[in-house]
Amino acid sequence: MEKKEEKLNNLRHTLAHLLASAVGEIYKFDKIKLTLGPAIENGFYYDIDFGEEKISDSALQKIEDRMRKILPKWTDWQHKEISKEEALAFFKNEYKAELINEISDRGEKITTYTCGGFTDLCRGGHLEHPAQEIDPLSFKLDRVAGAYWRGDEKNKMLTRIYGLAFETKKELEAYLTQREEAEKRDHKKLGKELDLFVFSELVGSGLPLWTPKGTILRNLLDDYIWELRKKLDYMKVEIPHITKKELYEKSGHWDKFKNELFRITTREGHEFAMKPMNCPHHIQIFDRKQWSYKELPQRYANSTTCYRDEQTGELSGLSRVRAFTQDDAHVFCRMIQVKKELGEIWDKVVEPFYKSFGFNLKLRLSLHDPAHPEKYLGDAKSWEHAESVLRELAQERKTEFFEGVGEAAFYGPKLDFMATDSLGRQWQVATIQLDMNQPERFDLTCVNEKGEKERIVMIHAAIMGSIDRFLSILIEHVAGNFPLWLAPVQVKVIPVRTSHNEYAKKVFEMLKENNVRAEFDDAEENLGTKVRDAKNNKIPYWIVVGDKEIEADKVTLESRDKGQLGQISKEEILSKLLEEIKNKK
Amino acid sequence: MEKKEEKLNNLRHTLAHLLASAVGEIYKFDKIKLTLGPAIENGFYYDIDFGEEKISDSALQKIEDRMRKILPKWTDWQHKEISKEEALAFFKNEYKAELINEISDRGEKITTYTCGGFTDLCRGGHLEHPAQEIDPLSFKLDRVAGAYWRGDEKNKMLTRIYGLAFETKKELEAYLTQREEAEKRDHKKLGKELDLFVFSELVGSGLPLWTPKGTILRNLLDDYIWELRKKLDYMKVEIPHITKKELYEKSGHWDKFKNELFRITTREGHEFAMKPMNCPHHIQIFDRKQWSYKELPQRYANSTTCYRDEQTGELSGLSRVRAFTQDDAHVFCRMIQVKKELGEIWDKVVEPFYKSFGFNLKLRLSLHDPAHPEKYLGDAKSWEHAESVLRELAQERKTEFFEGVGEAAFYGPKLDFMATDSLGRQWQVATIQLDMNQPERFDLTCVNEKGEKERIVMIHAAIMGSIDRFLSILIEHVAGNFPLWLAPVQVKVIPVRTSHNEYAKKVFEMLKENNVRAEFDDAEENLGTKVRDAKNNKIPYWIVVGDKEIEADKVTLESRDKGQLGQISKEEILSKLLEEIKNKK
Repeated sequence: MEKKEEKLNNLRHTLAHLLASAVGEIYKFDKIKLTLGPAIENGFYYDIDFGEEKISDSALQKIEDRMRKILPKWTDWQHKEISKEEALAFFKNEYKAELINEISDRGEKITTYTCGGFTDLCRGGHLEHPAQEIDPLSFKLDRVAGAYWRGDEKNKMLTRIYGLAFETKKELEAYLTQREEAEKRDHKKLGKELDLFVFSELVGSGLPLWTPKGTILRNLLDDYIWELRKKLDYMKVEIPHITKKELYEKSGHWDKFKNELFRITTREGHEFAMKPMNCPHHIQIFDRKQWSYKELPQRYANSTTCYRDEQTGELSGLSRVRAFTQDDAHVFCRMIQVKKELGEIWDKVVEPFYKSFGFNLKLRLSLHDPAHPEKYLGDAKSWEHAESVLRELAQERKTEFFEGVGEAAFYGPKLDFMATDSLGRQWQVATIQLDMNQPERFDLTCVNEKGEKERIVMIHAAIMGSIDRFLSILIEHVAGNFPLWLAPVQVKVIPVRTSHNEYAKKVFEMLKENNVRAEFDDAEENLGTKVRDAKNNKIPYWIVVGDKEIEADKVTLESRDKGQLGQISKEEILSKLLEEIKNKK
Repeated sequence: MEKKEEKLNNLRHTLAHLLASAVGEIYKFDKIKLTLGPAIENGFYYDIDFGEEKISDSALQKIEDRMRKILPKWTDWQHKEISKEEALAFFKNEYKAELINEISDRGEKITTYTCGGFTDLCRGGHLEHPAQEIDPLSFKLDRVAGAYWRGDEKNKMLTRIYGLAFETKKELEAYLTQREEAEKRDHKKLGKELDLFVFSELVGSGLPLWTPKGTILRNLLDDYIWELRKKLDYMKVEIPHITKKELYEKSGHWDKFKNELFRITTREGHEFAMKPMNCPHHIQIFDRKQWSYKELPQRYANSTTCYRDEQTGELSGLSRVRAFTQDDAHVFCRMIQVKKELGEIWDKVVEPFYKSFGFNLKLRLSLHDPAHPEKYLGDAKSWEHAESVLRELAQERKTEFFEGVGEAAFYGPKLDFMATDSLGRQWQVATIQLDMNQPERFDLTCVNEKGEKERIVMIHAAIMGSIDRFLSILIEHVAGNFPLWLAPVQVKVIPVRTSHNEYAKKVFEMLKENNVRAEFDDAEENLGTKVRDAKNNKIPYWIVVGDKEIEADKVTLESRDKGQLGQISKEEILSKLLEEIKNKK
């Protein structure tokens, strides 16, 4: 653990003690039962059995105040090793007793830590001088939740009090601001507000249905990727979403992926599965003939939906779904062609795509875990070779990267790109993978210059990864304010009154004829309401047509991002919009 | 049965007798057992038990000659009613005995027909004077096949001799020519030769995989339909390929479609199905909010793959598959909007699409079968109403149509369009359906002018129906000679020798930059081979670049359909091609 991280962990752990102490003082130590209180990401918690007492968020301020009040007395720690019997006699509560017995059973020492007169069963890991080291405004109690003792629903439900803690007040505030912003931007919330996708109880969870607006987003993103890929001579292919079991037995998916496969038994009793990945299907297309080395690389692109039997509890919005559309591609090439192919995907597809949305990319070189060979196909030698190719590529390109042992796919190592969004959060997005195993299993070859069969390799390259998941990231990154080229509705044309409808309609028709996605708002509402509706829908531009505009034969243009842009002629607006759309700004 | 059809049927039935008589004469009546010989489409057959004898196609000429030889003696028929006992004694063969017993059990008369001295068990239906009425060159024996007695594989395998027969020699020849042409055009054969799609034993039968060239065809066809639909304000939506059972219980598919559903049980034990249709999913998208009448119609378009658990024996190329992509659309509208919507789809999507390929369309009004109400959802009244709307539409438009009782979907009547292809064969293609039942089951409404909830209706409209099946028809219709706009490779650029590569490459690059799908053939082959390859691949145009061309700064253009077009400048060729592509000629 890094120094800074360790310090933060100690701070948070210390505050968990302080929380327990404050709760004990307020609710009386003999009326409650303290259990466990660790440091967690962004703060800490403590699980407490309050007996009959009901605790809600409204109690938090009082506890937080008490924590601050007693903090100055928390000058230093007394640390003591005690026997099991002493410990059981001291704590007198069944939860602590369970922990004490377990520690003793493991043959470990039982230790207590005391600070400010409060003693808890603990293995240590605190700030040495809490009163001096903790800024009383750098922490905050966050919320109350129910939690089963040790996470087991057969146990009693305890009260968990969550706290947030950072080294400084400023960092705490920054976190709170970011969290608030993230909540406002939550893609599940915006997806509903902006009418992008829906879930249906009849269809099932984890299976998003895309509305017209959401479908525009999906298709434009997919078209953009294709525009980039096309320049590299990719060719689209198309495949069914199911296959006989035999394909996955041969590819290894039946074994390595079996829990996540949706399985089908046909009326004739054959076993089928829905595809969780596309590589084995694409291999079948490649494998339709014997290729000459002159015909390689063969580059297949295919945006198609994959299916995984995820557990209901793990599903979340578009981030974790049962059906997701991959913007997938597979390159079948010779080993000597790999570096050029990988480099081109990286430079000409991944980079421009993410740059255009203002994402910063970091790289993780995802390697196999030599300690667990059973998780992977193929031998150590071919893994090391494939990994060295990817490492070399990253090094040559002077890209900052870190290595993730155990993060490889079961068939090969990966270049995983991590995008940092506008709130500073990191998401795994594009992935480029080198696969020497599936070509081996399917015996894929080309005939080389010597007229001999030569084993080829495969590159897997999904740029968005999953369009659905990428959209969850993008929606939050831009807070629903899609750039003009991507916005489902690009311009709203608003006549001020019914008498302006005719002129406004002409503007609307002109935009539509030029493939601008325009909306015409002739509702019998006042201007304010119509403009508010445009803003709520995060439409990039709206055009207002009233008496003045008709007189001047110009219309008023307003931008979501830049405010009022004044009166402009219809023709100028059109060329301005088309230019902006073309540049994907 | 129409007069002409009845006559043809009698001709064919008569020839079945003649065939049996000829076979008996050659192979001896006491060595073989004659069984059954009906008239069929395009001809007739007779099933014969030859005992130990093996008969192959090589025997047909001899039998055919004998038929012609004895035909002059077949001047008229003697018809006789006989008792069961007489019949059993006369025919002395177990197959005829089985038939005789059945006729007798049904209480029907047992009759024999004799002509030219040959007597067979028969109910009649012949040409009265075969020798006079049959042109000896208007029939032909076709092939020998195995056939189980009465089609039951538990019975003995008999020898079936197939014959072809028409009223005139000319008609027979026309049929043979058409059949030969159809075999050459077989989409399974051309699909392989032109590298459009493949099947994989590992993926499974009925699950086509689309190569780059085939995928271009699919996508261009789909884009064309979208181009037409877009003008009618359709909006694309997207849906998963699976759903919980609950959706189909509510829609009625679980009950009415159960045998064809691919079913899935998830790891958590939930029951899912793959979608055999898209309507219930689209209904879930529509149903995300309460609509005002002002917002209707809502028109959703979605090209998406459907899955049906077809039996292996019924699969055939792209005509009958387990996975097929529908160019589907659903319109949610008020009853008063139905006629306008239907008319517009018909005029602005169905008609131009099929016209552009030179298909003639006929209409079948597909109605429910009142004798089998259990096959349909909803009551007789709503069916009659929906059917009357479709009938009115067809009548108003003065379209020739026929009514197909029992051809409706289980949820509503249909306008089914039948396309006649270049070989005169008829195929069911586009379908427009009116559905009052699903809106009822899902309680779909709009709020009308009075502020009350009003039941809406649904229109289902797939123009190609299934892209896969449409392609099977189109491939055969054009014999693989796709029009320029659709051809996977539009132009091949051929340098005569290596020294011409540079100039030729520039022509190729120019075409590619202008989105013409061009291929550059710099293989070390002679010109003849390269041109032959272009022809074999049915590429619409090829450009030849040699010394003369470089000198003149013009290239030689040749067309698949129009032959040599002479020397033309690069720029002229480009504009000619782009114009032709734009016009979808």
